[in-house]
Amino acid sequence: MPKWLLPEHISDLLPADARILEELRRSLLDLFRGYGYELVMPPMLEYIESLLTGTGSDLDLRTLKLVDQLSGRTMGLRADITPQVTRIDAHLLNRSGIARLCYCGSVLHARPRGLHASREPILIGAEIYGHAGIEADIEICEMALGALALSGAGQVRIDLSHVGIARALLGRAGLAGDGAADVIAAVKRKDIAAIRASDTLDAEARAAFEVLCGLYGDASVVERARSALPADPAITQALDDLARLAASLPAARVTVDLADPHGFQYHTGITFAVYCADWPAAILRGGRYDEVGRAFGRARPATGFSLDLRELATLLPDPAPRLAIRAPWSDDAALHALVRRLRAEGEIVIQDFPGHEHDPDEFSCDRNIVRTAESWLVQALDEPRGA
Amino acid sequence: MPKWLLPEHISDLLPADARILEELRRSLLDLFRGYGYELVMPPMLEYIESLLTGTGSDLDLRTLKLVDQLSGRTMGLRADITPQVTRIDAHLLNRSGIARLCYCGSVLHARPRGLHASREPILIGAEIYGHAGIEADIEICEMALGALALSGAGQVRIDLSHVGIARALLGRAGLAGDGAADVIAAVKRKDIAAIRASDTLDAEARAAFEVLCGLYGDASVVERARSALPADPAITQALDDLARLAASLPAARVTVDLADPHGFQYHTGITFAVYCADWPAAILRGGRYDEVGRAFGRARPATGFSLDLRELATLLPDPAPRLAIRAPWSDDAALHALVRRLRAEGEIVIQDFPGHEHDPDEFSCDRNIVRTAESWLVQALDEPRGA
Repeated sequence: MPKWLLPEHISDLLPADARILEELRRSLLDLFRGYGYELVMPPMLEYIESLLTGTGSDLDLRTLKLVDQLSGRTMGLRADITPQVTRIDAHLLNRSGIARLCYCGSVLHARPRGLHASREPILIGAEIYGHAGIEADIEICEMALGALALSGAGQVRIDLSHVGIARALLGRAGLAGDGAADVIAAVKRKDIAAIRASDTLDAEARAAFEVLCGLYGDASVVERARSALPADPAITQALDDLARLAASLPAARVTVDLADPHGFQYHTGITFAVYCADWPAAILRGGRYDEVGRAFGRARPATGFSLDLRELATLLPDPAPRLAIRAPWSDDAALHALVRRLRAEGEIVIQDFPGHEHDPDEFSCDRNIVRTAESWLVQALDEPRGA
Repeated sequence: MPKWLLPEHISDLLPADARILEELRRSLLDLFRGYGYELVMPPMLEYIESLLTGTGSDLDLRTLKLVDQLSGRTMGLRADITPQVTRIDAHLLNRSGIARLCYCGSVLHARPRGLHASREPILIGAEIYGHAGIEADIEICEMALGALALSGAGQVRIDLSHVGIARALLGRAGLAGDGAADVIAAVKRKDIAAIRASDTLDAEARAAFEVLCGLYGDASVVERARSALPADPAITQALDDLARLAASLPAARVTVDLADPHGFQYHTGITFAVYCADWPAAILRGGRYDEVGRAFGRARPATGFSLDLRELATLLPDPAPRLAIRAPWSDDAALHALVRRLRAEGEIVIQDFPGHEHDPDEFSCDRNIVRTAESWLVQALDEPRGA
């Protein structure tokens, strides 16, 4: 087996892709900073108990594990970053007020999530802790759309949902545990036949879940739901919140899918997913998870989102070639001063090593530095060299 | 054991430290880009054979290993990035000309390298492939000093060495294998007694290695070495290269230590280490490793350096607090437009969520947005709020 072969679903990011990724990373972190989000960098490795707190068996199966040589305990390589940021909010920062936090880093998966998925997603995300009101959801959704707009991805839409509606219907039907999970799975598949055939649901509940399966479309779905679903204070509250959130976002970009119970075990309120052209699944997901901090000693309201920069980068066109200046190699102090000044101004200046003056260029060099009678001069090239 | 406890020698980077680290990351990658270095991002995980190619047993012991669920083969978590970049140059890019590459990312160590060392260094570095001449060493050392200057670390000096000198002396003494390793270990400790007592060295070699142990100091050491060491073409070449490199760097910053055989197994020519105030060991190390690409099918000249951003960040003062603008929460379109404009200009604007107007600030807010009769206004605060 050749030594340059990488494991399946693991890959290098070569210069063109790495450049797109680094530019995305910076522009998204700067966007978050403008809203007052502070960057944190949790570690790649933690004890398994910390990583898997309140996260469900899906994350457990995805997490690579190894034994710590120092303590003999089992450690995991993070497969998600949100639980780490929740730990930081709950235990390390322990602020009384709002905490706005963001992060960017690799996670590792024991098995890929899909046929073309990487086992090393590079997650970037933002979280608000400490505010239960809809304002936090509004800010997070606005920022999620802002992130996609900055990236230049096309035809973006945000799809809103609320786990409180299905949860209220399950409560009315007196259903929990496996019975509830079966119904939720049927809703997720929009499998009306399975709901009609269910013997755990009474007639009223069957009707309500059947209606729920059809409640997707533009923002008018929220008003349709008010008359179609049973009158219930929790459902009314959920629909009020959805209506307020939808009204605060650009109407053309909003869709609603009340039958999307994604993250039903984990989320506690409004959830959302952002879709864009040329990507078959959601490119960004987020929502409320008010209970997750409890395991770290402090449950408080929380909402946020994350996306995989590797996936987002594949949606973008190749960047324009970067223009550079080619300089000869010389000990001359005046040349050194010129090169230093150009670099300080943000130019790329590539000095030719002796014997390599005719190598192919990896940058697109549109200017040369040439020696004149008295000094050195930047000169435009008639024919740009290189790629 | 509380769930928020991290493994030993593993830590979070909280907002103040993460901010220093991110700013260092950007300014160093921008510096490298100005010289024409292209960013690559190799993966965290590879098959163990690829990671440990030609790197020696030290890296093997430091590398965390696990079994790939997909292939059943052993994978390692990278403990260094240079071998990965060499693989990329040799196999993936496979350019005929010079390749200038740079990288930044976490590596993981099974055991810490020292009492206070992190098991997750964040390495940043740069490498040149394809040029055997001293010009590549000059560019790399200039960039290493530039990186430290940008970071703001104080009292920086660069310490030059060359593994070719000790290697030539070993060759003249006919020594290899364990015998050679013992002598090198003694030179590293500057243990003249051990060299005098050596029964594997003849009288001439004992004298030469004893002289070598004393060859450290300012750049004049190079000239001192010419008369003190045996006449040998390889030694003369090494000293010529060192003299040319030293002359190209700021004299006040250069020291020479010919008795520093750091990386003797791995390096093939000039090596260097950068030291600065308040740090007991080298903060940056680099040098030539012309043979490393061979295992990937293509040995070619290479030199480069790397440093740990976590270590560098601890040397720097806490950053000045970031100034921000506090805005009320409102649905008013004019306020939204103002906030959007300020953020686009690079300002941090934090919108107060209802009920949290009197929370303590995490940013230093020196301005407020207030409503006037007709519109909204940014108003300086007499007493800045917050930290």
